[in-house]
Amino acid sequence: MASTIIDSRIFGDIFSNAAMRHVWSDENRTSKYLEIEAALARVQGRLGIIPAEAAEEIIANCVLGKIDMDLLAQQTRRIGYPILGVVSQINALCRDKLGEYCHWGATTQDITDTATVLQIREALDLVGSELDAIATLMADLAARHRDTPMIGRSNLQQAVPITFGYKIAGLLSAVERHRVRLAQLRERVLVGEFAGASGTLASLATGGLETQAGLMRELGLGQPVIAWHTIRDNIAETGCFLGLVTGTLGKFSTDVKLMMQTEVGEVYEPFAHGRGSSSTMPQKRNPISSCYIHACVSMVRQHVAALLDASVADHERSTGPWEIEWISLPEIFCLTAGALAQTRFVLEGLEVDEARMRANLDLTNGLVVSEAVMMGLGPYLGREYAHDLVYDICRAAIQQNRPLLDLLAENAEITRHLDRAALARLCDPANYLGLSGEMVDRVLRSRGGHSPAG
Amino acid sequence: MASTIIDSRIFGDIFSNAAMRHVWSDENRTSKYLEIEAALARVQGRLGIIPAEAAEEIIANCVLGKIDMDLLAQQTRRIGYPILGVVSQINALCRDKLGEYCHWGATTQDITDTATVLQIREALDLVGSELDAIATLMADLAARHRDTPMIGRSNLQQAVPITFGYKIAGLLSAVERHRVRLAQLRERVLVGEFAGASGTLASLATGGLETQAGLMRELGLGQPVIAWHTIRDNIAETGCFLGLVTGTLGKFSTDVKLMMQTEVGEVYEPFAHGRGSSSTMPQKRNPISSCYIHACVSMVRQHVAALLDASVADHERSTGPWEIEWISLPEIFCLTAGALAQTRFVLEGLEVDEARMRANLDLTNGLVVSEAVMMGLGPYLGREYAHDLVYDICRAAIQQNRPLLDLLAENAEITRHLDRAALARLCDPANYLGLSGEMVDRVLRSRGGHSPAG
Amino acid sequence: MASTIIDSRIFGDIFSNAAMRHVWSDENRTSKYLEIEAALARVQGRLGIIPAEAAEEIIANCVLGKIDMDLLAQQTRRIGYPILGVVSQINALCRDKLGEYCHWGATTQDITDTATVLQIREALDLVGSELDAIATLMADLAARHRDTPMIGRSNLQQAVPITFGYKIAGLLSAVERHRVRLAQLRERVLVGEFAGASGTLASLATGGLETQAGLMRELGLGQPVIAWHTIRDNIAETGCFLGLVTGTLGKFSTDVKLMMQTEVGEVYEPFAHGRGSSSTMPQKRNPISSCYIHACVSMVRQHVAALLDASVADHERSTGPWEIEWISLPEIFCLTAGALAQTRFVLEGLEVDEARMRANLDLTNGLVVSEAVMMGLGPYLGREYAHDLVYDICRAAIQQNRPLLDLLAENAEITRHLDRAALARLCDPANYLGLSGEMVDRVLRSRGGHSPAG
Amino acid sequence: MASTIIDSRIFGDIFSNAAMRHVWSDENRTSKYLEIEAALARVQGRLGIIPAEAAEEIIANCVLGKIDMDLLAQQTRRIGYPILGVVSQINALCRDKLGEYCHWGATTQDITDTATVLQIREALDLVGSELDAIATLMADLAARHRDTPMIGRSNLQQAVPITFGYKIAGLLSAVERHRVRLAQLRERVLVGEFAGASGTLASLATGGLETQAGLMRELGLGQPVIAWHTIRDNIAETGCFLGLVTGTLGKFSTDVKLMMQTEVGEVYEPFAHGRGSSSTMPQKRNPISSCYIHACVSMVRQHVAALLDASVADHERSTGPWEIEWISLPEIFCLTAGALAQTRFVLEGLEVDEARMRANLDLTNGLVVSEAVMMGLGPYLGREYAHDLVYDICRAAIQQNRPLLDLLAENAEITRHLDRAALARLCDPANYLGLSGEMVDRVLRSRGGHSPAG
Repeated sequence: MASTIIDSRIFGDIFSNAAMRHVWSDENRTSKYLEIEAALARVQGRLGIIPAEAAEEIIANCVLGKIDMDLLAQQTRRIGYPILGVVSQINALCRDKLGEYCHWGATTQDITDTATVLQIREALDLVGSELDAIATLMADLAARHRDTPMIGRSNLQQAVPITFGYKIAGLLSAVERHRVRLAQLRERVLVGEFAGASGTLASLATGGLETQAGLMRELGLGQPVIAWHTIRDNIAETGCFLGLVTGTLGKFSTDVKLMMQTEVGEVYEPFAHGRGSSSTMPQKRNPISSCYIHACVSMVRQHVAALLDASVADHERSTGPWEIEWISLPEIFCLTAGALAQTRFVLEGLEVDEARMRANLDLTNGLVVSEAVMMGLGPYLGREYAHDLVYDICRAAIQQNRPLLDLLAENAEITRHLDRAALARLCDPANYLGLSGEMVDRVLRSRGGHSPAG
Repeated sequence: MASTIIDSRIFGDIFSNAAMRHVWSDENRTSKYLEIEAALARVQGRLGIIPAEAAEEIIANCVLGKIDMDLLAQQTRRIGYPILGVVSQINALCRDKLGEYCHWGATTQDITDTATVLQIREALDLVGSELDAIATLMADLAARHRDTPMIGRSNLQQAVPITFGYKIAGLLSAVERHRVRLAQLRERVLVGEFAGASGTLASLATGGLETQAGLMRELGLGQPVIAWHTIRDNIAETGCFLGLVTGTLGKFSTDVKLMMQTEVGEVYEPFAHGRGSSSTMPQKRNPISSCYIHACVSMVRQHVAALLDASVADHERSTGPWEIEWISLPEIFCLTAGALAQTRFVLEGLEVDEARMRANLDLTNGLVVSEAVMMGLGPYLGREYAHDLVYDICRAAIQQNRPLLDLLAENAEITRHLDRAALARLCDPANYLGLSGEMVDRVLRSRGGHSPAG
Repeated sequence: MASTIIDSRIFGDIFSNAAMRHVWSDENRTSKYLEIEAALARVQGRLGIIPAEAAEEIIANCVLGKIDMDLLAQQTRRIGYPILGVVSQINALCRDKLGEYCHWGATTQDITDTATVLQIREALDLVGSELDAIATLMADLAARHRDTPMIGRSNLQQAVPITFGYKIAGLLSAVERHRVRLAQLRERVLVGEFAGASGTLASLATGGLETQAGLMRELGLGQPVIAWHTIRDNIAETGCFLGLVTGTLGKFSTDVKLMMQTEVGEVYEPFAHGRGSSSTMPQKRNPISSCYIHACVSMVRQHVAALLDASVADHERSTGPWEIEWISLPEIFCLTAGALAQTRFVLEGLEVDEARMRANLDLTNGLVVSEAVMMGLGPYLGREYAHDLVYDICRAAIQQNRPLLDLLAENAEITRHLDRAALARLCDPANYLGLSGEMVDRVLRSRGGHSPAG
Repeated sequence: MASTIIDSRIFGDIFSNAAMRHVWSDENRTSKYLEIEAALARVQGRLGIIPAEAAEEIIANCVLGKIDMDLLAQQTRRIGYPILGVVSQINALCRDKLGEYCHWGATTQDITDTATVLQIREALDLVGSELDAIATLMADLAARHRDTPMIGRSNLQQAVPITFGYKIAGLLSAVERHRVRLAQLRERVLVGEFAGASGTLASLATGGLETQAGLMRELGLGQPVIAWHTIRDNIAETGCFLGLVTGTLGKFSTDVKLMMQTEVGEVYEPFAHGRGSSSTMPQKRNPISSCYIHACVSMVRQHVAALLDASVADHERSTGPWEIEWISLPEIFCLTAGALAQTRFVLEGLEVDEARMRANLDLTNGLVVSEAVMMGLGPYLGREYAHDLVYDICRAAIQQNRPLLDLLAENAEITRHLDRAALARLCDPANYLGLSGEMVDRVLRSRGGHSPAG
């Protein structure tokens, strides 16, 4: 019986997904504890810090199936942290008190932090592969619609034309940067913790750094330059990264929502029977996924502030700030996963209504190309005169609700230089796309090896 | 397999509690839907809007046990909202298509919002009773320690003495205000929703307002003056209220943490075997509950911002902002419940070390009462002269690390007026408590009928 | 040379206004300090706690013009707080060392907090009168457009009709609640501070509570039940209130922005020459004020979180949290003032295009009244059959892009019961407004004495 | 008359500093506009897009002193943005209407965004040089106190010893990462904008990309791969970076505050006459700078959330989100500058009380080295037996309030193996520092060329 939307049987796969929930589950977290305790024993056995026999016995008992989770819950409520409970259960499982060598020289937070980093690694892998998929989908969409004209909008007003590919390429440029950020972030955050109570490794008379190095090698993590029990910039940066990623998803979903408006109707989220429709309002096609993305993104940005708050930690082991991460990290990743999955779903099945895009370009009777007309007439009439003349004609077009082309073609000053056919070319939004296509190409080229699926 | 800390088997009862999780559970939420649909059928049957037979049949089938939750999860993922799924399941359960009259004139958000308000009512009841209990515990503690001297601290520096009761009374004054706020909030937020697709009740040809009034009476909720599908100030205010409450809890836990420091040691969280202790550091007595409170509070304040974000809703039914509430409301209440429960636990068993409080008062060799000494000598030496003289002696006391009293008693100018016994009285922090006791009394009196348990 | 947008010569009157900036200015804050020190001297002179002569001299010198602000800046940077600087300047201004009696028994934070409350009172008065004006404007608009049909929108999709008055009445209902909240808040927050270093008034040997009571009477503030140096729920609640108010403004500006879209065009912000227009894009009419409101609102909600953060204060005088308020309070009020002023400006000159509203109602060829048609045919064809039949015809209307009315009128089953004229009445959105008008009336009535002007 | 704390004459140099305020001042922002318009004219003159004569005339008039700032304020309030006002003023200054060629092909946001990036570059330079200075100061401090023993604290409880150099080295490790982040960030954010109304450069018939490339070369900025008018990840990332930096400063100030407590007294902020002291409480030494840092940091993290909010932009030019940046960017930088300056000030003059650190190590009568004693006795008594025996003796030490050493030396089982001198060595916290020194060395080595000043 879950109370959060993320763990809800009803809503969980809408606002998150199973793979990411698994990463942050009680089971996976506990199995990371076991993996680390086993790796520690293996390394310390090898280094002769603990008896080889103890190492073997400990490793053999670091198995999730052997852990009594109800007992662990009890132990955690009593002690305040789960690690001692896990260690005491391992201890109890080992023969001949060999389990006493488990957790040798470690402190609770060493195991917890390293487990968190292992979870973050899995979680970032999920985020990374979603970003890869989204980048590919966007690249395809940008390439396919490189030259599909639509209106560009500024302040929610029709401005001048763009192409749909151009719009998507802008988003893609951000996704590509996120992929670079992810690579840079991994370097910093995939670093383990093994340092003892105050971080000095005093708990091991000898072999402290060797154990630390060996343990990190076993786990495939970087070795910390110094303990980071209360130096949390890397964790906070992970949150910031997710905030940046979801910001882009929020921009995408905002545009989809706006383009799906009844009065606009240029793109649609994928249709599925009953999805986002109403039994009594057949005209509705609700941007369901975009709503979910919006909500996840709004929540994620507040988690970023919470994780920054957590970085203001006291002394060598913090008194509350650390626990903010316990609450926030699973949720920020789970909500990001939800937003990524919904975005990918939308991209995979996005319906693009090119005809409606074209119709909307014509909605203002040609006013959206007045800039083009001004520029086209400049060489004949002088730039400033052309501007003022066209601006006046535009106002007339608005007042009379008539096509700009018609009014232009009625103006003798203008027709002296350009006939109706030439004016029609000037007034065709499809002829005023600027470098939309080149911009798409630039973005696609910047992806390097990542060309859109051929 | 839960991924959030709130629903975690291991951590759930630390950062939240079962009663509050129940309120926001899939089961309880769904049962609210059923309760509302049943009440709606009852009212509309009574008003003759739907056949009495249909009302009966619907009511008979609005039973949680009859709902297939897996099917509901499927339906929700497909449609985007759970209400149609519930209605179609009720429909399928009813004989003779009588279920067609279920949900008559309602829109999805009517049921969802009203269910949320019913959940908020239960949740606020839990919060309210915790606040009552905390207020009583604080009142008891304030009364008991009305005259227990301790040092007051400003900027984390010892300032002048207070009593422990005074410290608690300050917190109590805020809790009492929270109880007033809660009463004022209930008036606004315990209001249902029944308004149809755009909020105009056009979906009912007749009897719209009568149905609305009757439904709210059935559910014990206020009738809205107008639809609030996208007017969300009341929901946001609920979040703000929880932010204010937890702010006070955060202040309490901060003080407990600081007073539990090894170097201070004035109060302790309740002791339980193994709780907050370390197997290799026997001197440690960790402020476990205070850590949890701190983390919950830090997260709650960001949820407040998220709920304010949700109040920026578009048109008649919002496109994303509403869903922020779906994520945030359960969590902000669950985390608040965790912080309240931990606070109550601490208050119930708080250990107060009066001897250590007294010892800390003496830590500065009497400097913390220099103000009292200045005031006491003023009538004899002139206020300004007394100030300067005492200030100089204080500096000497710091440099020589000797008791202020000794230095005062060595000064001829001073002993001309006051002997050592008189000076000792001036230097006793317990004689410089100001109106600490009266302030406690004022706060206790302001509680009105709520006197501390006799 | 200002660096913040609020104090910017260029942007300051866009994102805030002069009246609110004045409240939080160095000059006004300092004059509040002087007002309080003068009132304190007056009260203590009257009570015989300080010599009457000293009181007179102090009062005579508590004049802003006598304060050297550059010196005060220096003193503040050195000491960390401005109060001692002000007091020492008063002291220096007074003859015969009578200024020594200034600030008698007070602590820095007493004066600062009370000054802040006086500033809050002025600031809340500004907020309150803007809310009053906005409520009146909304009431007028709601009354005037009580019956102006427009489409209601859900998920940014056209849903079923409403009236524009109904839309505004929803917002008005929130503004009315804000006015109630403001009244309740004033009770709690307009309370002064006078308590001495640790809040116990030990600094006054006698007459502590009398001084406190007298001082608050002088200033027109409530007397605190106990010191609130580190009990900051009231300050945080002030922030929450502004968050709630601006949430409503954000909802309003969101709707204006969306209705101003080129493709929608139902309302417009007031026109002024050059305002929100483009020299090369004559079709543009930018929602300038709505943009500003949006930005202010987004920032305000984060200030709410900051002010909640500030309420987690340590011990008797906090070490950092208090200073958060110093940063945040002026800004949250200034940005709220900006959002209120822009909202009022928009409401005062809002252009409503009833013809476009009507045209948009017809955009879907009648589909937005399919619910009405289903309901209208129900009595003749049976509710369920009518639903399915109309739904099928709607799909055909979408596919053929023809008016629903035409297709209904071609259906023999239907025309057997209703002729084209009757069907046309059913298909007229203006006949499907539900209780829009009644809802407007309900909201206007709920305002009590506050009837719309005229 | 400033209303914000940042621009306050009284507080401005406490919460920010003049250099950073200058970057975000009206004057500097406007001079960036002029710099960009001049550079644009230069490039377009060179490319033959505008007449060389026009370019020269425009460049000659792009001078801050020629701009009428009051007029600009008026223009901005009317139009909503300052750029057109600037351009029209330049235009008016130019002879023969040559100013018509100013701003050729540009859109308002091109100039605003590029100006913002130029301001960010200056601001990041200030941040970077403060980080460099802070890193050097920390490196010096870490090296100097590489071996200065003090207690490590966990959960605000004394845990096991560390050195003060180790504590500082942990912070330094984060500062070093921030410097790497800054370098990576510069790559992404120091990219200009020049793209026209919808970002397609349609506004230039030819030479669009050449102009863009040339302009960016002139300004020393990167050329964008595509317009980023509504792709704001880089701006948001800038905010995130400042959030991460200030998180570290917050951790530092938290530790300073805690170490300055009367009951701890291990370090002190630099002393200056009157700074953080009280005229009646001579024992006080307030952590003034730490308070300011705390407040700045708390506010900065909320600005991060606001800037992430701003990245959810609509279409090709956003309707509100962009303006969030206008409010937030100046403040987040100014507050960060304040926190950096205060941190640097503290580091430059930090007083370290080694004797008090040593005294605090002895506060628990030796319990903080019980782990060392357990480990030291393990080889003689068996690890587990040693643990239990020492733990029992520790409890006795607590109950009897006697030194652990005395009790150990009274225990026959123990003295059979180790005499009092050997036990005293085990009980000396200075002998249980683990790898504190090596960790310092590791961090210092990781700085590469950045060795502490010799």
